[in-house]
Amino acid sequence: MTINSKHCRSNCPINFVLETFGDKWTLLIVRDLMFKGKSSYTEFLQSDERISTNILADRLKKLEDNGIVKKDVALDNRSKLIYALTDRGKELLPIMLEITAWSAKHDTATNAPASFLSEFTSSKHEMITNILENLR
Amino acid sequence: MTINSKHCRSNCPINFVLETFGDKWTLLIVRDLMFKGKSSYTEFLQSDERISTNILADRLKKLEDNGIVKKDVALDNRSKLIYALTDRGKELLPIMLEITAWSAKHDTATNAPASFLSEFTSSKHEMITNILENLR
Repeated sequence: MTINSKHCRSNCPINFVLETFGDKWTLLIVRDLMFKGKSSYTEFLQSDERISTNILADRLKKLEDNGIVKKDVALDNRSKLIYALTDRGKELLPIMLEITAWSAKHDTATNAPASFLSEFTSSKHEMITNILENLR
Repeated sequence: MTINSKHCRSNCPINFVLETFGDKWTLLIVRDLMFKGKSSYTEFLQSDERISTNILADRLKKLEDNGIVKKDVALDNRSKLIYALTDRGKELLPIMLEITAWSAKHDTATNAPASFLSEFTSSKHEMITNILENLR
């Protein structure tokens, strides 16, 4: 599957990401898949930000349509859907870590681990490799 | 000036950035200041994405309120306002470059320079240093 920006406002790479993720919810689903070990609709609903069912359904469909997320039936329960990041989705990891680093530095109330910034600064490559290895 | 997430939906660092930049417009202004050499209201209005005057005014105010952007009167025209990134705004550069890299790889119609991805991959640190040196 390919996506392209021919229907976007411009072909600018920053704009392309805004057209795909430019809202207050979509990246939270990516976060839940990437860092929180979540994979089901019910689990996404339980995150602190309290996403509503209709927004969650809409954003999951868009993420699937854009090839960021894939879904499959659960092995142990054929009526349950399991979501996972595609390779394209996993490649958002450096963006997500840079976002975390910026927030960890500038949000006085952040819940990012105190050690994150120094670990990220000193061993960015190793951190990315480790997280990717642990994603299903 | 400090910002904190006490009024946010959660203290998650990903959420913090979404509360600050989670729309389709705000990061375009950061892009214009960071990569396009733009600094005035009129210049922001002329970007390809055709931001409207009311959205531009609203987002510039939010960027100022959050300490990302500062404004000053132009030296050569006291009735003209000039915008620039603060240090906090400049520190968004790694996020912006990772976004550009992801789009350059996944958007078949991207206008990112063909050489960007290989240059970014091979000399990320030098690229960041060079751009920061050239920001006013």
